[in-house]
Amino acid sequence: MKPTILRTVAELRREIAAFRRSRPPEAASVGFVPTMGYLHEGHASLLRRSARENGLTVLSIFVNPIQFGPNEDLDKYPRDEERDVALAASCGVDLVFAPTVREMYPQRRVTTVTVSEVTEGLCGASRPGHFDGVATVVAKLLNIVQPDRAYFGLKDAQQAAIVARMAQDLNMPTEIVPCPTVREPDGLALSSRNVYLSAEEREQALSLSRSLAQVPAWIAEGVSASELSERLRREIGRSPLAQIEYAEALTYPDLLPPDGGAPLRGVEGQLLVALAVRFGSTRLIDNRLLNPKEAGVEACSAK
Amino acid sequence: MKPTILRTVAELRREIAAFRRSRPPEAASVGFVPTMGYLHEGHASLLRRSARENGLTVLSIFVNPIQFGPNEDLDKYPRDEERDVALAASCGVDLVFAPTVREMYPQRRVTTVTVSEVTEGLCGASRPGHFDGVATVVAKLLNIVQPDRAYFGLKDAQQAAIVARMAQDLNMPTEIVPCPTVREPDGLALSSRNVYLSAEEREQALSLSRSLAQVPAWIAEGVSASELSERLRREIGRSPLAQIEYAEALTYPDLLPPDGGAPLRGVEGQLLVALAVRFGSTRLIDNRLLNPKEAGVEACSAK
Repeated sequence: MKPTILRTVAELRREIAAFRRSRPPEAASVGFVPTMGYLHEGHASLLRRSARENGLTVLSIFVNPIQFGPNEDLDKYPRDEERDVALAASCGVDLVFAPTVREMYPQRRVTTVTVSEVTEGLCGASRPGHFDGVATVVAKLLNIVQPDRAYFGLKDAQQAAIVARMAQDLNMPTEIVPCPTVREPDGLALSSRNVYLSAEEREQALSLSRSLAQVPAWIAEGVSASELSERLRREIGRSPLAQIEYAEALTYPDLLPPDGGAPLRGVEGQLLVALAVRFGSTRLIDNRLLNPKEAGVEACSAK
Repeated sequence: MKPTILRTVAELRREIAAFRRSRPPEAASVGFVPTMGYLHEGHASLLRRSARENGLTVLSIFVNPIQFGPNEDLDKYPRDEERDVALAASCGVDLVFAPTVREMYPQRRVTTVTVSEVTEGLCGASRPGHFDGVATVVAKLLNIVQPDRAYFGLKDAQQAAIVARMAQDLNMPTEIVPCPTVREPDGLALSSRNVYLSAEEREQALSLSRSLAQVPAWIAEGVSASELSERLRREIGRSPLAQIEYAEALTYPDLLPPDGGAPLRGVEGQLLVALAVRFGSTRLIDNRLLNPKEAGVEACSAK
């Protein structure tokens, strides 16, 4: 069935309230997938999971200006609402919330949600203000939809960690559900930005997933965080078009550096190995989340 | 009837959910009054109004450490839960949420809600970080209670403006209801901090309300913002124990300075005339909210 498209906060709230009233509480759960649109199979996996786990699934499509820096790709960010709605329909989405910028920011905004520490490394270092923009818009969207569960892809592992931490710290009544990265058959992590890649860049971009695939073996060998970083850089560096921004191992979800020189296989809990690499003007990220104590077993496998 | 006292977020949520399930939606509204306890008749007026307007009234009592500066009165802030609960009972409160600091901040907090501009003048200037602490704890409490309406006294007019603006900017599904200041028969605005005043300070503290009472007449005479400030300072300065921190007129709720030299009677909309004055180590605030175009008519009268 075709989802209903809503452009205003008031309309969306009315639809969700009507749904909640129509069901007994145990069958009235609402699942939510916030996106910037231009959906791919990664988003589809979140939407299908939400549709399986909830009575109502809400998709938001909003290219959020306040999370883009002045020299970033806001204007050229790809958009195709018609295709997005068709994909949403096939995934069991009930409501699509696609507001204008004016609807989301009707007046001069003076309120910002800031998450410290978890935002400082990785993408936070090179994109000042980016995660304030993400945290603020996600707080707004969660307040608008008031879902029982919200689904975030682990391709943006730092973003998922930030949102989970914000929801905890602010006592938001929503469960933040992290979901595994979806990949092309050759290993490239799905991203709306992949469309920017030339054929040659697309080929060389495989160095991200290829190098990450070797991480469990390297950890089993006993590499430290700095050795792992070096090996990743060397491996990716073989692709001449790749400009590495970071290649790092951090504890998850706190995103703190593990003990410098010690072998990573001794790390308790989860370890995030994360990459950001530019190909021309296109910035790609990818990562693997591992349990080093369990011999590098992938921490989050596809459901 | 005695209200139920709840110490944990989980227990409080359970009680509120049970209430909402027990009523048809139109009778299931929840009203909320967040406080730091040591309740006085000002709080009581908020609680009675909430009880009149809602099916369930929740009072929170929490002395929030993150809104106190390092040299402020956190440790000696007055507390008397037993008396507070008795007063709450007489006002029709159903649930009292009185969490520990550990329940509200169970882990290292990395998330902050910041409101800019509206927080910069008045109390924001002398209490750095104070309003971040207020905005953050109010966001947490609103997320915990999820009330239909939350009631704030206009004695802290800047706080009421900040909370209203935060709720708008973050699309919180709660109506922020500003309520008039309650005063002693002689004019002193009620405050939990009044207990700190010596008899002599208590007497001289009347200079705040006395000077504010003259503001409508001065505006009718045609004073500018700076002239008004001077007259207030002169008037309060007659009390030798008074140390004035600020005495200012700002537009409300944006808290911007009105056109410098122009007569205030020309100001469109609401005008806040606000004072902060120290007596010894006790800091008192008071204000009047006026509609200059309506000949200084009090903008918010008691209901």
